[in-house]
Amino acid sequence: MSVTAPKGFVASGVAAGLKAGGRADVALVATDDGRAVPAAAVFTANLAAAAPVQVSRRHLAESGGRVAAVVLSAGNANAATGEAGVAAAERLCALVAEGLGARAEEVLIGQTGLIGIPFPLQLAEAATAIMTTDTVAKEVVVQGDGFVVGGMAKGAAMLAPNMATMLAVLTTDAQVDADDLGPILAAAVGPSFNAMTVDGCTSTNDTVVLLASGRAGAAPREAFAEAVGEATRHLAEAMAADAEGATKVVHVAVSGARSDEEAHRAARKVADSLLVKCSFNGADPYFGRVLSELGTAGVAFDLDRAQVAYGGIVVCDKGVAVDHDGPAVAAHMAGRQIELACELGLGSGSSVVLTTDLGYGYIDENRTTS
Amino acid sequence: MSVTAPKGFVASGVAAGLKAGGRADVALVATDDGRAVPAAAVFTANLAAAAPVQVSRRHLAESGGRVAAVVLSAGNANAATGEAGVAAAERLCALVAEGLGARAEEVLIGQTGLIGIPFPLQLAEAATAIMTTDTVAKEVVVQGDGFVVGGMAKGAAMLAPNMATMLAVLTTDAQVDADDLGPILAAAVGPSFNAMTVDGCTSTNDTVVLLASGRAGAAPREAFAEAVGEATRHLAEAMAADAEGATKVVHVAVSGARSDEEAHRAARKVADSLLVKCSFNGADPYFGRVLSELGTAGVAFDLDRAQVAYGGIVVCDKGVAVDHDGPAVAAHMAGRQIELACELGLGSGSSVVLTTDLGYGYIDENRTTS
Repeated sequence: MSVTAPKGFVASGVAAGLKAGGRADVALVATDDGRAVPAAAVFTANLAAAAPVQVSRRHLAESGGRVAAVVLSAGNANAATGEAGVAAAERLCALVAEGLGARAEEVLIGQTGLIGIPFPLQLAEAATAIMTTDTVAKEVVVQGDGFVVGGMAKGAAMLAPNMATMLAVLTTDAQVDADDLGPILAAAVGPSFNAMTVDGCTSTNDTVVLLASGRAGAAPREAFAEAVGEATRHLAEAMAADAEGATKVVHVAVSGARSDEEAHRAARKVADSLLVKCSFNGADPYFGRVLSELGTAGVAFDLDRAQVAYGGIVVCDKGVAVDHDGPAVAAHMAGRQIELACELGLGSGSSVVLTTDLGYGYIDENRTTS
Repeated sequence: MSVTAPKGFVASGVAAGLKAGGRADVALVATDDGRAVPAAAVFTANLAAAAPVQVSRRHLAESGGRVAAVVLSAGNANAATGEAGVAAAERLCALVAEGLGARAEEVLIGQTGLIGIPFPLQLAEAATAIMTTDTVAKEVVVQGDGFVVGGMAKGAAMLAPNMATMLAVLTTDAQVDADDLGPILAAAVGPSFNAMTVDGCTSTNDTVVLLASGRAGAAPREAFAEAVGEATRHLAEAMAADAEGATKVVHVAVSGARSDEEAHRAARKVADSLLVKCSFNGADPYFGRVLSELGTAGVAFDLDRAQVAYGGIVVCDKGVAVDHDGPAVAAHMAGRQIELACELGLGSGSSVVLTTDLGYGYIDENRTTS
């Protein structure tokens, strides 16, 4: 298993009954000796942060950034569950800590699923699966020079600006300065999980944790940061490809903006557009909607300088349609992966955002909770 | 016809061939004597403003706010069409002006339809219909004390933050100070067209025009402003009800915010949420998603104070689920109109945003342009 590829970690999963049909719904990633190791985490920016996020934040602060295990559960987000929800998350951490011989504050918890449903505390064991509406497991192993970074992630709808509804655990056996872990994880999350958007919704439960056992000895900071970046990018791509109801994965690239920040804002505006996403679903290279979104992205924009290309084929230049190889564009749009490039001609800022199309599948997944 | 209810106006429509099947696609609203009258207009905030918007803005400035006619066309937005598009819009205005004996700059033009397609100038006449994907005509007549306000609107997808893809013409026979028309129209657009959102997209072509013939004599400013507000609200409700693929119209009310502005931002975040809109489509009172959106709206929010109600029935209080009349909520959700109320408990700011559900219909309408 990916998270156990680095030395010093174990993982398991069980069906605790949070989900119907005996599906695995609780997973545990822990150090193999139950001892806490340096760790870092990034949590949702949602002000309605779920109980597990509140508890994990506190634990990380209390333990001084040292973690022995991360318990993950699916089926119930334990969000909007008040004090009882916090107590339930605390209890789960305490049970896991007891089993490992660790302290409760050395255990973090990530939960995903429905919001607003009291959390059933008839959970006893801890274990493997963290799948809600995912169709494939998203795992990655990045082999560094003398160390390994492993990772697993769960996420589907609510993939948005500040991370998806996603729970991800990354492990490594590299020995890294504990103070470096946080900045390295934050830097990796930016262009991966935070540069993807399925529906523009930021979940109440997002949590990404990185644990470092140190078993493989010291690793150069840069090489390690690169490996973590590669792992998070890989997981983000896998999450987008498996997003609820998505039939296409789209890279929306904006260049020529006044700044990278403006390019990012423009790319996200296009990527989050319902009309543009419907066009992806219909394999329609309707650049007019792309221009319309760029014009309302809140960034500098001059229609007369704008260029739009699909699959590298320019369909619009200087703000108007241009002759192009129609069949080649059609062939590109028909594929599973679409490359949309927007050149603004105003500067050197650029950014790429990962998104998906919008089709019946998304609606089917999300119209009711039952 | 609504816009001819006030004294001094005529209107007509023809099928000019912009749309297939001989459907009416060009409409004209004009003064009955071809003379220009005081007018005001509000245009899209989109930086990729279409040719007709550019031309109308210039005409209004050149004529000193006096207008003899508004020509409207559907089927081709004449957006992202470069200088040729501007020339085509100018030509249409000139043809209409010639027919009326008015000057070209006294004619405004509004166009809607596909973006990025060269505009075919084989149009000669002017006339009634401005329907693109609308299923019903949206007209209104508001009877004031001694004066009348009439209005017609076209709009469907791309109903968003700064007006929909909408073309609206309001007429009145009230005699109003010309300098008052602009502020009165702007004030009316705020809580009507600008307080509705179907897909969060702001069109390149939005245009709202108000013409005042003065034939009914002087009207009190306040009563007149109220009538204009009533007319725009009515048209906005009709547009939402007829939005592409919508099966439900939803009022998202936010109260208890720190300010009206924060309430509006929060209401719009909820109203634009794909996940929340899918829930409406499924008639699912899933308040958890509403809380999640409120938590990421960029406004002050305290989960422990939040209350959510559907159809006046509280389903969540102080951030957690509360016992409620389930069948009554289900009956409300099953209806064509949903009332969602969010109380933040932080202040006295409030706002209401009009939106729709998200279902297959929206995707069917928008996945391809053909």
